Amino acid sequence: MASVDVGIGLLGYGTVGSSVNRLLVESADEIERATGHRLRVVRALVRDPAKERPFPAGDEVLTTDFAEFREDPNVQVVAEVMGGVQPAGDYVRELLRAGKPVVSANKQLIARDGAELFATASEAGVQLRFEASVCAAIPVVKVLRESLVVTNVHRVLGIVNGTTNFMLSHMERGGSYADALAEAQALGYAEADPTDDVSGADAAAKMAILATVAFGSRVGYEDVERRGIEELEPAHVSAAAQLGMVVRLIGIATLVGDAVDVRVQPALVDRAHPLAAVDGAFNAVMLQGDAIREITLEGPGAGGIETASAVVADLVSVVGTSGTGFLQNDACWRSLAKLPSSEWRSPFYVHLEVSDRPGVLAHVTSRLASHEVSVAQLVQKLEDGAATLELVLHRAPYGAVAEAMREIAVFPEVLRPPFVLPVITERGL
Amino acid sequence: MASVDVGIGLLGYGTVGSSVNRLLVESADEIERATGHRLRVVRALVRDPAKERPFPAGDEVLTTDFAEFREDPNVQVVAEVMGGVQPAGDYVRELLRAGKPVVSANKQLIARDGAELFATASEAGVQLRFEASVCAAIPVVKVLRESLVVTNVHRVLGIVNGTTNFMLSHMERGGSYADALAEAQALGYAEADPTDDVSGADAAAKMAILATVAFGSRVGYEDVERRGIEELEPAHVSAAAQLGMVVRLIGIATLVGDAVDVRVQPALVDRAHPLAAVDGAFNAVMLQGDAIREITLEGPGAGGIETASAVVADLVSVVGTSGTGFLQNDACWRSLAKLPSSEWRSPFYVHLEVSDRPGVLAHVTSRLASHEVSVAQLVQKLEDGAATLELVLHRAPYGAVAEAMREIAVFPEVLRPPFVLPVITERGL
Repeated sequence: MASVDVGIGLLGYGTVGSSVNRLLVESADEIERATGHRLRVVRALVRDPAKERPFPAGDEVLTTDFAEFREDPNVQVVAEVMGGVQPAGDYVRELLRAGKPVVSANKQLIARDGAELFATASEAGVQLRFEASVCAAIPVVKVLRESLVVTNVHRVLGIVNGTTNFMLSHMERGGSYADALAEAQALGYAEADPTDDVSGADAAAKMAILATVAFGSRVGYEDVERRGIEELEPAHVSAAAQLGMVVRLIGIATLVGDAVDVRVQPALVDRAHPLAAVDGAFNAVMLQGDAIREITLEGPGAGGIETASAVVADLVSVVGTSGTGFLQNDACWRSLAKLPSSEWRSPFYVHLEVSDRPGVLAHVTSRLASHEVSVAQLVQKLEDGAATLELVLHRAPYGAVAEAMREIAVFPEVLRPPFVLPVITERGL
Repeated sequence: MASVDVGIGLLGYGTVGSSVNRLLVESADEIERATGHRLRVVRALVRDPAKERPFPAGDEVLTTDFAEFREDPNVQVVAEVMGGVQPAGDYVRELLRAGKPVVSANKQLIARDGAELFATASEAGVQLRFEASVCAAIPVVKVLRESLVVTNVHRVLGIVNGTTNFMLSHMERGGSYADALAEAQALGYAEADPTDDVSGADAAAKMAILATVAFGSRVGYEDVERRGIEELEPAHVSAAAQLGMVVRLIGIATLVGDAVDVRVQPALVDRAHPLAAVDGAFNAVMLQGDAIREITLEGPGAGGIETASAVVADLVSVVGTSGTGFLQNDACWRSLAKLPSSEWRSPFYVHLEVSDRPGVLAHVTSRLASHEVSVAQLVQKLEDGAATLELVLHRAPYGAVAEAMREIAVFPEVLRPPFVLPVITERGL
């Protein structure tokens, strides 16, 4: 096969963009063997061409003019590696309309504007790929789309934010939330403003994208129930340890009949569960389905070169499958309802601080029983006339647990609002 | 896009074949959405058409006549799910020559006859895919080929045989080798004749295929150094536990400069290493490379429906990429030398039984030192005048360790030949 040059345009030339260029240069032979094409960066849109960059692009490559970038006939495939919802979204939209396939590493853009962007791509008949937008080099989008096409994945569990996973691992060894954050910042895992990570916003965007691909129905960022790790206290972490569990920020997407539930929140994870073993800043995604039982993918979920490796894999797939109708875009083909949060079922953990009076335990358990919620495990600790109850509840609808907790919260002997987290023990074995 | 029917021929209609048919029937809509085609089993070659089968094929589908199968113009893509090296190999060869793309679930065939079969496929200009030949539904071939195309994977570590993993997990809890085998047979994890599993032959075929794909250079079954688990004793397993490790049958493929080393053997695995946590009969493959650091894929490595799911994914990929030059076949593009086994480097574990005489420890360690092998950890146990030494050696060439052991074995105070296993601690973080 004669080798053909394919011109690549980069939207952005920061850490990820320069790594994409480096990989394309250093792996040109590998790519040519895989596709019959040589991929070469011919244009990169940047704000400041004078800025010093780790792997500089050629002299004629950088431009600050989007119209010039868009009109350049040598730009045949685009990689969006600039981040941010705007102006990235407008650029991607215009490029798709101009008939250029786009590969994006931008989770917030795909999770928020996916519906419109994929429709634009379909109308234009070009591909929009997004492997790098979720968990960097872990190829979970390709695996869901291509390898598990007939397996009816019904549950996706993930640790998809490395910063919070690092922080929670740190708290497990005895640190406070503030210590853990400071350590993550010192090591470069957390930004100066860590809000996106600790609030679960970053993880929610990734879970929206994964749920969309897994279930074939659009889940946007705003459809994801979200709770951050800010209110976690060392007491919760040590209570988890006593129960044989760890606390992790978990993404859970569940298909229940014709409805979908997607959530990101701290959860207690059984120590024997594979997600409990995910190290520090690593990510892991567990896919449970009919034919596969359970497949877990684990690896670095962030990093410039790791993300660039996924961008390049998508560029290679675009070039390798263009002209076929194979697995274009995100393949939403149905519109599933959102499961009412009250119907979402899980085992739960409850941390309850009460004054130590006779009958309080009976009072609590009878309230739970009246909502048909039963107790699997109970640890009671006494200190200075107050008691801490650590309860693990059997699998129950969240609505029933929440209702029982509302009733329990107003008991005179309950000192603080009950603190409730889901518990992850289930496997698809 | 107009939907086109694609006729699928099955070589074999046993557990995997009938599951392939079931998945194609039950997921016809999913497949059509992904490829624009409807895949339908039109012919299946079997030995005994009268045999009762779990998901029976239509009346006209079964045939015992290979020539009829091969000449059937409705058979457009073939799935080889019959197993065995012959006659499967001849059938696949003839079908490729007749211009039919083939998907194979047959690890022994691909590992032994791969060079010739892929050459035949290339000459005929048709695809030969083989995802299902390695670890069933775990999509490690696609991930290596397509997602990690630019990452220069230099190390593959795997637990690729579920039977032995189950047995070794069982021995860890105190059983003997015979107990573990009996339990695996009772649960259906091990065959009546477990030789292929316990000797490492099954794992060696899988590692040959994975190394070929990871390094782009042909590694055949016979190129894999292989040692089974038959000689493992409870003493080794409990010694490992005392050292904070577990014993597992590990496949290790390493790229060292321009040479390759591929081996399957029992190894001590650090408890904190992700491979130590792989459950019972599950498989896991860890890929270490430049841009990705370390990606681990874990899931069920065997089973009819799990294997069928990978066969169907390959059928979908064949249909979706035919007409393109995208990632055909196994992409061997270079011919790397086999690393001399003596140059393969690893930390090692040594189990040594000696008579308890003064100076024996000094004698042993000075022999090691003379080969520049140093000791990282040492546990000595005394019993009735005899001593057991459990040594963990720092990373060293296998040749140096083996030479030291040959010298130590002839000491008068050494009661049994030293027992040596590699130790897995390294991660690509």
